[in-house]
Amino acid sequence: MSLLYETINSITASDRDAMQKAAKYIDSLAKPLGSFGMLEEIAIKYAGITGQIFNKVHKKNIIIMCSDNGICEEGVSSADQVITRLMTNSMPEMKTGVGVLASFAGSELTVVDVGVKGVILNPKVINRKINHGTKNICKGPAMSRDEAVKAVEVGIEITDELSNKGYDLFGTGEMGIGNTSTSAAVISALLEIDINKLVGAGAGLTDEQLENKKKVLKKALEINKPDKKDVLDVLSKVGGFDIAGMCGCFLSAAKNKKPIVIDGVISGAAALCAYILKPEVKDYMFTSHKSDEKAVNYVFEYMGLKPMLHLNMRLGEGSGCPLAFNIIEAALYVVNNMATFEDVGIGNDIKDRFVDIRGKGNK
Amino acid sequence: MSLLYETINSITASDRDAMQKAAKYIDSLAKPLGSFGMLEEIAIKYAGITGQIFNKVHKKNIIIMCSDNGICEEGVSSADQVITRLMTNSMPEMKTGVGVLASFAGSELTVVDVGVKGVILNPKVINRKINHGTKNICKGPAMSRDEAVKAVEVGIEITDELSNKGYDLFGTGEMGIGNTSTSAAVISALLEIDINKLVGAGAGLTDEQLENKKKVLKKALEINKPDKKDVLDVLSKVGGFDIAGMCGCFLSAAKNKKPIVIDGVISGAAALCAYILKPEVKDYMFTSHKSDEKAVNYVFEYMGLKPMLHLNMRLGEGSGCPLAFNIIEAALYVVNNMATFEDVGIGNDIKDRFVDIRGKGNK
Repeated sequence: MSLLYETINSITASDRDAMQKAAKYIDSLAKPLGSFGMLEEIAIKYAGITGQIFNKVHKKNIIIMCSDNGICEEGVSSADQVITRLMTNSMPEMKTGVGVLASFAGSELTVVDVGVKGVILNPKVINRKINHGTKNICKGPAMSRDEAVKAVEVGIEITDELSNKGYDLFGTGEMGIGNTSTSAAVISALLEIDINKLVGAGAGLTDEQLENKKKVLKKALEINKPDKKDVLDVLSKVGGFDIAGMCGCFLSAAKNKKPIVIDGVISGAAALCAYILKPEVKDYMFTSHKSDEKAVNYVFEYMGLKPMLHLNMRLGEGSGCPLAFNIIEAALYVVNNMATFEDVGIGNDIKDRFVDIRGKGNK
Repeated sequence: MSLLYETINSITASDRDAMQKAAKYIDSLAKPLGSFGMLEEIAIKYAGITGQIFNKVHKKNIIIMCSDNGICEEGVSSADQVITRLMTNSMPEMKTGVGVLASFAGSELTVVDVGVKGVILNPKVINRKINHGTKNICKGPAMSRDEAVKAVEVGIEITDELSNKGYDLFGTGEMGIGNTSTSAAVISALLEIDINKLVGAGAGLTDEQLENKKKVLKKALEINKPDKKDVLDVLSKVGGFDIAGMCGCFLSAAKNKKPIVIDGVISGAAALCAYILKPEVKDYMFTSHKSDEKAVNYVFEYMGLKPMLHLNMRLGEGSGCPLAFNIIEAALYVVNNMATFEDVGIGNDIKDRFVDIRGKGNK
């Protein structure tokens, strides 16, 4: 059996019993019931992942999948493709968007060349290049089905390795000019959402540029006819090596029972692929920010997830992950350190009223 | 001239020239224009406050104003008033909601008794008690105008002192059963918004309890007839010592050119008071989270501010501040450490296209 199917078969739901115990403990803390909102949900979900009520993050890592996209030929992005290579090369120095925020949050980066066009000279970039970019999806599939499986398995292998090295909180990021286009195509194919709804005008694409991007993606979907019931078909026909690689990261994290953060539209497309392959993957996923790339909102809605940061970011690279790491660590810190009602001298007689009323927003 | 009016008169707008310089520098960083969204806005606003492009936070402090509210007699909160005293007493131990998150974020707390009913035994709580709680605003004004001025001046003095001690990033918090009621009354009076819109049902107040809270607050506004053009009249008639004290914190922070974070509905009501007293105060204010107490959203809208965290928190105490501190520090860290286009080898020819296109959400 291939690594991919072995991985999918090994994934099980998180520990519901630990989640219940964590929820019960959190209700004993000196605050109105539920008043820490998503911080409580995060801590409970985390308990389900590790099987423990009290948790601490030891080593964080954001995995960045870098690759090029043949669709750039169609002018969906007049940003020069060379930027993929230049930025990939720079990323391990921790000075690009995701790197600088990762440093801030005490996270490492793992930069993977899964299909960048040209040669990456920086030895700190892991070379798992499958091809020099994908093919133009307006003319046929982006890659072969074998290549798609291989790209997913790169993500699995990298994340398996990091997991074995003791990393216990993952983020996902990418670099690849043209990848908001492929992500929109993948999301459109899998969720059967009109591509017009998924391609945003951003802050100021000209109407002409926007129409072209929509037209190109419509054509790509028409020509390739991806099968929505077959994630690998969708990935290989209209996806990219980066999306496939990140999909592997999500699968591996779930298999290894490690939490992993979704960030932005490309990561969102990959998370959706992993979720459809194995719904239990969702138990291991955390969100970061609400991206200004609107396609990802459909993914969050479909999966029943809610982004926690509203910062109008649209940089990509996984740059929302370090900020999400901070919130997740804050949530765990609360459980480990907050006083219980008993600690602050609030007995059951007072507590019951405190909880009943303050807990309902009426302090 | 009183400390209050001296303070108001000393407040000036932040440094627009430094903001422009910071914005220009941020545009030279290796990312699509504006793609870091609010992180960029935060860094630019911060530059205006300090007058410097590059900034670092040295010492953080969240000031917690604690006091009781006479309106509790009317059953707007059947939470026992004694909780104000018990929680105030516990807060300096850093184990309540705000304390535990402050520890996480490396922030200190300054807990001030500005009007708690009863005696606070913990010597770490600063005793600036004006009275043992306010009077019942359903029967008359909460406090005298002199007391309101005194409470605002407590906030100014405390924040002036901390500012002199080198604290350079402030948060605001509170503890006081009944203070979402007084906050709603203050916001209703100042913004002329129907109290029905400002009092939330929360997750599960019974219809009866909710109707009572609305009725009580309507009566308080009718009896007291606060003058919306006179902030001190509003504060003294339907406010509380905590709201007045926090209003002073905002004024002092602006006078001392120090950034200060608004957190939650009580803090929001206080920020609104400070803003109406002197609109330039806004230049020094940062938001934290979108509270589940909906009244604060009207304040944000009125002041043109946007909360950055959407965590469905409604704990109060200032517990959103430490999380906001982290985001603010991340924004400053980006400016101090991120590579420029030049650093990553992207020349002007490529950069212009990168910026033009990727900057518009079309990577």
